[in-house]
Amino acid sequence: MNRQDRDAIYGLAREWVLEAGKAIRERINDPLTIDTKSDANDLVTTMDKDTEYFFMNRIKSVYPDHSIIGEEGYGDEVTSLDGTVWIIDPIDGTMNFVHQKRNFAISVGIYHDGVGEIGLIYDVMADNLYSAQKGEGAFKNEIELPPLSLKKNFHESILGVNHFWLCENHLVDEEKMQEMVRTVRGTRSYGSAAIEFAFVAEGALDGYMTMGLSAWDIAAGIIIVNEVGGVTTTSFGEPINLLKKSSVLTCNPAIQEQILHDYLRKGRK
Amino acid sequence: MNRQDRDAIYGLAREWVLEAGKAIRERINDPLTIDTKSDANDLVTTMDKDTEYFFMNRIKSVYPDHSIIGEEGYGDEVTSLDGTVWIIDPIDGTMNFVHQKRNFAISVGIYHDGVGEIGLIYDVMADNLYSAQKGEGAFKNEIELPPLSLKKNFHESILGVNHFWLCENHLVDEEKMQEMVRTVRGTRSYGSAAIEFAFVAEGALDGYMTMGLSAWDIAAGIIIVNEVGGVTTTSFGEPINLLKKSSVLTCNPAIQEQILHDYLRKGRK
Repeated sequence: MNRQDRDAIYGLAREWVLEAGKAIRERINDPLTIDTKSDANDLVTTMDKDTEYFFMNRIKSVYPDHSIIGEEGYGDEVTSLDGTVWIIDPIDGTMNFVHQKRNFAISVGIYHDGVGEIGLIYDVMADNLYSAQKGEGAFKNEIELPPLSLKKNFHESILGVNHFWLCENHLVDEEKMQEMVRTVRGTRSYGSAAIEFAFVAEGALDGYMTMGLSAWDIAAGIIIVNEVGGVTTTSFGEPINLLKKSSVLTCNPAIQEQILHDYLRKGRK
Repeated sequence: MNRQDRDAIYGLAREWVLEAGKAIRERINDPLTIDTKSDANDLVTTMDKDTEYFFMNRIKSVYPDHSIIGEEGYGDEVTSLDGTVWIIDPIDGTMNFVHQKRNFAISVGIYHDGVGEIGLIYDVMADNLYSAQKGEGAFKNEIELPPLSLKKNFHESILGVNHFWLCENHLVDEEKMQEMVRTVRGTRSYGSAAIEFAFVAEGALDGYMTMGLSAWDIAAGIIIVNEVGGVTTTSFGEPINLLKKSSVLTCNPAIQEQILHDYLRKGRK
């Protein structure tokens, strides 16, 4: 993707993200219609659907040849990352949106021929926009995020860890994960993958791991974390394939090998 | 405590909390001197100490007969809750303060002859002040918080749960806790007891449980949660004794019995 095209796409994407966020804030106290999807705790609201529909309309009107992968299904049937693909989660952290009316984000990742070019994560209620273009650094609002410090010590790390890692699960031995929790300085869980990626990018978390995420949960985060020197793989260190559900480890590179070697790979089932 | 005295104390306490918070915000990017206390992850900074010292000075200059219990040790040797006692955590969530520069709070609870009269929790960087006076309702900034809905269903609850509950521990069977995590809608962990109490008061969490807290972590939170109809006990349903370290369960009363009966008491070691 050439610089000029990307700048134009970035400008529009940013404008639409901010516009969608404003619309959500204005309707934040409206009564909600809540449905469930794969299970009783997998929530979706009309706000998720309306927001995705908004993006779909805007993108198709300006870039009819771009493809869209969206969580709520208004996008295209995408089977490859050829061409320009927008990967959108209209509300990442829908449970937080429903129960807390905050701590959710709009996540937009834009890929060209499989390469992450633009990432936008908008923490809507905090009005914090995390953004990046490939090779141009990452920003929180107008301020460039510094590169992650490579002096990070694993024992002094704070990790974002979903509680399910510590319960019996199909992926890793939970006792290994419990050992990890006792070894690091602290663990947190915020309930929005996009926001936890953004926290890794700004060093508020040193790593975040999660099971079974889809492209829309991570597409923007990967690009933003990459721009500050962070690394993202599956939880066993393999490259992420955005066309499949995947476990994810995104972190400061200084602690990656220790997490992978001492805990995730050792505990792999 | 009569109404007039309490109003006067509340007015000053609120003023000092906001003043201390402003001072912390102004110094948030200063280099930190970090010490550790009981273990390598129990952090304390000069900001914790300076803030407690500020409160101690202000309180003693106006109310020399009041007692102070403070986390950093500038307070009094308090062996009873007779008279008026200020219970202060200058920075609750010091690990967040150090690593995230946000998600920490000033917590001030004021008790008279053992009765909680005034609670203040100030999420410093978000500039959100949660406050309550006994019998007068609880507020977030200037807005009164509604009573907790008693229609809350346990399966649709979001709980604040430290990850250590799911690891082998001295208090409860971790497998019972893992079962609880799989039963509720979601679990979160924010790393500040005061902020998690505030989240329970505003319904952003339906419950929060934690092991081994001291008076300063919970004194304000108990009062604020109580004013919206929430309940706080030890993790086995016993009354809290603020003069001892204690496990804590604070929650919506609609789910209290289920958490206690089905999980915490059944899993008790």
